[in-house]
Amino acid sequence: MKAQLFTQFQNIVDRASNEDLAILSQWMNGFEKKQSNEMTTYLSAGLHMERTLTADYCRVSIPNTPYIHNTLNIPHGGILAVLLDTAMGILANHSLPVGFASVTTNLSINYVAPAAAGGHIHAQVTLSHKGRQTIVLTGEIKDHLGRLIAIGTGSFFVIPSK
Amino acid sequence: MKAQLFTQFQNIVDRASNEDLAILSQWMNGFEKKQSNEMTTYLSAGLHMERTLTADYCRVSIPNTPYIHNTLNIPHGGILAVLLDTAMGILANHSLPVGFASVTTNLSINYVAPAAAGGHIHAQVTLSHKGRQTIVLTGEIKDHLGRLIAIGTGSFFVIPSK
Amino acid sequence: MKAQLFTQFQNIVDRASNEDLAILSQWMNGFEKKQSNEMTTYLSAGLHMERTLTADYCRVSIPNTPYIHNTLNIPHGGILAVLLDTAMGILANHSLPVGFASVTTNLSINYVAPAAAGGHIHAQVTLSHKGRQTIVLTGEIKDHLGRLIAIGTGSFFVIPSK
Amino acid sequence: MKAQLFTQFQNIVDRASNEDLAILSQWMNGFEKKQSNEMTTYLSAGLHMERTLTADYCRVSIPNTPYIHNTLNIPHGGILAVLLDTAMGILANHSLPVGFASVTTNLSINYVAPAAAGGHIHAQVTLSHKGRQTIVLTGEIKDHLGRLIAIGTGSFFVIPSK
Repeated sequence: MKAQLFTQFQNIVDRASNEDLAILSQWMNGFEKKQSNEMTTYLSAGLHMERTLTADYCRVSIPNTPYIHNTLNIPHGGILAVLLDTAMGILANHSLPVGFASVTTNLSINYVAPAAAGGHIHAQVTLSHKGRQTIVLTGEIKDHLGRLIAIGTGSFFVIPSK
Repeated sequence: MKAQLFTQFQNIVDRASNEDLAILSQWMNGFEKKQSNEMTTYLSAGLHMERTLTADYCRVSIPNTPYIHNTLNIPHGGILAVLLDTAMGILANHSLPVGFASVTTNLSINYVAPAAAGGHIHAQVTLSHKGRQTIVLTGEIKDHLGRLIAIGTGSFFVIPSK
Repeated sequence: MKAQLFTQFQNIVDRASNEDLAILSQWMNGFEKKQSNEMTTYLSAGLHMERTLTADYCRVSIPNTPYIHNTLNIPHGGILAVLLDTAMGILANHSLPVGFASVTTNLSINYVAPAAAGGHIHAQVTLSHKGRQTIVLTGEIKDHLGRLIAIGTGSFFVIPSK
Repeated sequence: MKAQLFTQFQNIVDRASNEDLAILSQWMNGFEKKQSNEMTTYLSAGLHMERTLTADYCRVSIPNTPYIHNTLNIPHGGILAVLLDTAMGILANHSLPVGFASVTTNLSINYVAPAAAGGHIHAQVTLSHKGRQTIVLTGEIKDHLGRLIAIGTGSFFVIPSK
């Protein structure tokens, strides 16, 4: 299988545009972070997620590159959902005692403007309500110019963790 | 740059688990589809999106692999948003006359069950309202066993296309 | 207190427009239904709610009169929420075994068109997901011409009933 | 018709519980405000809405009485939607130049706790995004103890006013 992968990689690089090469490099850089356990999932590694976490706030940032773009060359609305859901999930779980985890039950996002090209986009979330069985968080996404791109609200359900 | 990419790829393959190798293969297969213009974005290529489209229905499917999993080893809620938003956007744009496009203004998703392991997950969406300036679509995501994973509603705003 | 109420009622009737008189009559008709226990709340009585309920479907209808209008003389968006939430709550509770009730955790409504004047407006809801701890319902509101006015999704949380 | 209304009112008062009498009094007090044009709609009059409005903030309050209760004797979730949608609509319209109005396209509410008995409940909303064609507002509802009852997000579409 490995020989086949090298041939495939060779073919891809041979045909690669400069944009292709940048995406390849970006993706492999992320993949190495997954292999070194710096990242926990292929998804977060591929997106190069960086996080800041405090007791009542979480920020998750990713670079705004063609890797996440839709056909309009702006970040795909679903990727903004990945960003918000990740930040909310991190903060929700962080707020729970040992032995409990949380799962998303509802996520609602309003998209208000396209992100400016380049830089990073940042999801910033806070706790709006922390109940015994449900947690509600709100957040927003800003581009590298600090402009508001989207706002969102997430509901999480508390479950015993395995 | 290319020599550096080969070294990096070599290092990744040397350290790769079987799961890593499967993800590498899957990702490069998708990348080739982007290079051959079978896929229009790196995102849809990486996710191996397949679509079925009629006048009032769109289905988008992707394989359920670790490439899209969260730390619970199930599809990330944000990826389900990517799937729904993509299917809704395709159908919304398809419903418009030449010279018009649509952008998502709101996406709301209810997550009701984890997807069964393996197979594909499928977003199926239909038009609920098609106005002159706004379009509303509803949809659901099912796993390969046909079980409901999530439902969603999207609002789109109609704009002149460039 | 009763004498004061009669004086007040006298003053209101003396100054009443034909629309005022119709509203007064409508409201008192509803109030009598609350007094005779045909209606369980002042709110449902004032709105003259009528319901149709089966195992997996609930319809709640109310007359479309100035009693529920906003300043644009169409049904207030919040009243459409009352209608949907009521129909969803009835169906959610009906689906539960004795000893359990449900409370709304999230309600999301898309408003797609103003209701035609007159007649009744009808909320029709169905179960999308019935879990052990959460229930998700979807529904729509139509006017007396059968045109779609709004669609909505509600999440309910199951609790032991008192 | 007026004679008939008096007979009906007499019958209602004869059978009225103390709670009934309080509701009758409350409702007629509101009705008089509609007749004197202090209130613009039967709905806002019946609910005894009071508002505070600045350039970027609106608060709407109503008394928490059985008039708005569901069968659990707490404010009906739909009435909280009336409150939020009203406050959001007032602020959205206030933010627009002469010749423009706004209509709600989406309202999403998360219910997080029941309101404490008595007092008033207060919806407080602010502008999150003000575009040329769309406005997004967020808000919360608190009870008279200052506890959070619900949070909500509304999307409005800007239209020429008549």
